Amino acid sequence: MLSLASTTAPHWVERALANVDEILLDHAHCEKKAASTAVSLLFRYPQHTALLDPITELAREELAHFKLVVAHLHARGRSFARQVPSTYAAELMAALRPGEPQRAVDMLLCLALIEARSCERMKLLAEHLDDEPLRALYTSLLASEARHHQSYVDLAATIAPLAEVRARLREIGLHEAQVIEHAPRVARLHA
Amino acid sequence: MLSLASTTAPHWVERALANVDEILLDHAHCEKKAASTAVSLLFRYPQHTALLDPITELAREELAHFKLVVAHLHARGRSFARQVPSTYAAELMAALRPGEPQRAVDMLLCLALIEARSCERMKLLAEHLDDEPLRALYTSLLASEARHHQSYVDLAATIAPLAEVRARLREIGLHEAQVIEHAPRVARLHA
Repeated sequence: MLSLASTTAPHWVERALANVDEILLDHAHCEKKAASTAVSLLFRYPQHTALLDPITELAREELAHFKLVVAHLHARGRSFARQVPSTYAAELMAALRPGEPQRAVDMLLCLALIEARSCERMKLLAEHLDDEPLRALYTSLLASEARHHQSYVDLAATIAPLAEVRARLREIGLHEAQVIEHAPRVARLHA
Repeated sequence: MLSLASTTAPHWVERALANVDEILLDHAHCEKKAASTAVSLLFRYPQHTALLDPITELAREELAHFKLVVAHLHARGRSFARQVPSTYAAELMAALRPGEPQRAVDMLLCLALIEARSCERMKLLAEHLDDEPLRALYTSLLASEARHHQSYVDLAATIAPLAEVRARLREIGLHEAQVIEHAPRVARLHA
């Protein structure tokens, strides 16, 4: 259902559990970047009327999640702060075809796959973390990520025929699996 | 209360009333840009912990307003679309002092003044428009703009002493009055 072409390896879970605060800080940055990217689509694609309301709501929800994750950081005595980002998103976006509307479709599908990978990994965190507040956080968020995944696929289907969108989602899904397999072994949601 | 150093001239109202759809489209872009600028502050100033929650909420509210204004455009048979922006924000931001934390203070005060000017002009629209839905829109939004103005001033005061913030707000307010007086005579909220 999540369109992922690979399953996260156990060593990711081990590294995440050994670096919970770093994962949580990365997670805050991910929510902030997700909001920022959604807002950037409102600048880039004003003519795609069907995107405007859903993308605006997605951005608002990502911002609410950002606030929630920052609250968990504070509850753990940590602060939001700069962090070296993972290379995942930039490498994933290398798959974007240059012309329009192909680029818009690919961008929405890349965002769908980022949400899918987040969902898969938040489920692992919810299953394996000992910390009860964080288990509850990830249990509550993984449903949103799955919903966002589907929203981005649906939005791509407002721009291109559904069969074409599904085929392209499989292609970019294979690329995503390669990117995540070869990502640097750091403690990040998408590494 | 709004820290503005000038009062909008009657010719602005006349031009706005003669170009309501253009004003409304510009307004949608303004809400989108306000959200985007707020999100950009989360990227630029992660270390200013006191900004994070309020700025996140401001961004969410601007996005809700964007959606609302786009709905009014649609109700009038118009679409959100690209539009040549006014030069106001860029010229206003020329006042930013380069070093930190001065730049952060000035940025927050520029945003406060943009909200103030929006509030002043939305009040004029609420008073002079014949269209009942738009009168209601602007009546409802001008209170938010006044609140946002105060929020940005309060946030600046988390970074610098209040007396310094007030003095700088007066200085940038004088600059804002010059910028708006010499803005090109086009139908924009800030022109």
